[in-house]
Amino acid sequence: MAKAAEQKQNPTVASAEAKLDIRDVVNTAITYGEDNRHGGGKRNDVAMFVLRAMCMAVSTVAVTLMVTARETSMTTLYGFEFQLHAVWSLSDSLIYLVVVSSATVLYSLIQLIISGTRLMRKSPVIPTRTQAWFCFVADQIIGYAMVSGGSAALGVTNMNRTGIRHMPLPNFCKSLGFFCDHLAGSIVFALFAFLLLAASSLLDVLHLSRHR
Amino acid sequence: MAKAAEQKQNPTVASAEAKLDIRDVVNTAITYGEDNRHGGGKRNDVAMFVLRAMCMAVSTVAVTLMVTARETSMTTLYGFEFQLHAVWSLSDSLIYLVVVSSATVLYSLIQLIISGTRLMRKSPVIPTRTQAWFCFVADQIIGYAMVSGGSAALGVTNMNRTGIRHMPLPNFCKSLGFFCDHLAGSIVFALFAFLLLAASSLLDVLHLSRHR
Repeated sequence: MAKAAEQKQNPTVASAEAKLDIRDVVNTAITYGEDNRHGGGKRNDVAMFVLRAMCMAVSTVAVTLMVTARETSMTTLYGFEFQLHAVWSLSDSLIYLVVVSSATVLYSLIQLIISGTRLMRKSPVIPTRTQAWFCFVADQIIGYAMVSGGSAALGVTNMNRTGIRHMPLPNFCKSLGFFCDHLAGSIVFALFAFLLLAASSLLDVLHLSRHR
Repeated sequence: MAKAAEQKQNPTVASAEAKLDIRDVVNTAITYGEDNRHGGGKRNDVAMFVLRAMCMAVSTVAVTLMVTARETSMTTLYGFEFQLHAVWSLSDSLIYLVVVSSATVLYSLIQLIISGTRLMRKSPVIPTRTQAWFCFVADQIIGYAMVSGGSAALGVTNMNRTGIRHMPLPNFCKSLGFFCDHLAGSIVFALFAFLLLAASSLLDVLHLSRHR
């Protein structure tokens, strides 16, 4: 009761309360934003660092498995005995996968070094919006290239397994087990690296959507 | 000079000027934001509508070209004459491309109807952040699937052209010109549709990064 009475006597006091000092409002908003962003931001930064490390390891395995895919064996076709010499460099799709995976190893290594040094200096891994946009576009391009390389290689490897149905060719993988296993392993790791890049893209967008 | 003298006499007036009515500040900010967003937003909305329409048309052409890829012809191999019967459904990669392209046609049609009706009602095409996130994730998944389907089909089609080098097979496309042209056309349109989906993803992120 007393408050209402007091406000009635001195209307300017009531309206003064509504008139905050704009500088206080802005500062509190910024410091609130900073704390909140930095708490949530820290978790995202560490997650990004882990994704980069995993992506580098996984794409390195993909490259290693592919470049060691070579085998020579005998196979029979319509009573003829053939010597099969299979090596990854004989197929454009497999060469494409090796090139794309190697680019991913290099890209992930650079991102790993950048995010690692920033984490150690306790500064944000993605300090500016421009860098957030750059990381997003780069992650998208490398991600698209990786899923494209993995799919092209998968298409060819699958034909090794099923043969070409409009030409009754044998299932090469029966006589080229080592070669086909390396191919399959490399493709699985390549597609896993793609998923890690897709996840990095999502983190970039999360960062862009939160920071003005 | 008069202003400074006046301020000196009445310091409360000077500091009063700094104390704005918070409600005016907030309202002006919102109306300024609305106008600005709506102007820039309108352009993005129309761009999104055009991308959806193009994507639907392009992926429809990709499907049509692929499902009409069938041919029978003769070819000679080591003096033997073979009849080659090529149809898209004999290869898993080509089936995969047809399935993915059809999904893209359906997805683009739905997005086209939604954005078209909202444009006509003069309301934003992406009204909420949740819908912006949904559109972004959906565009990413369909985009990745499209580039994957196009690459797998490209890997197989390329082998038709180059043959399998660890098995001296002929260039099938010499005797299956119509079939290979349809394949090549379908893949080109499929990869074009992928680029349109990648552009839609970018617009989604632009929207997410601007609207809180």
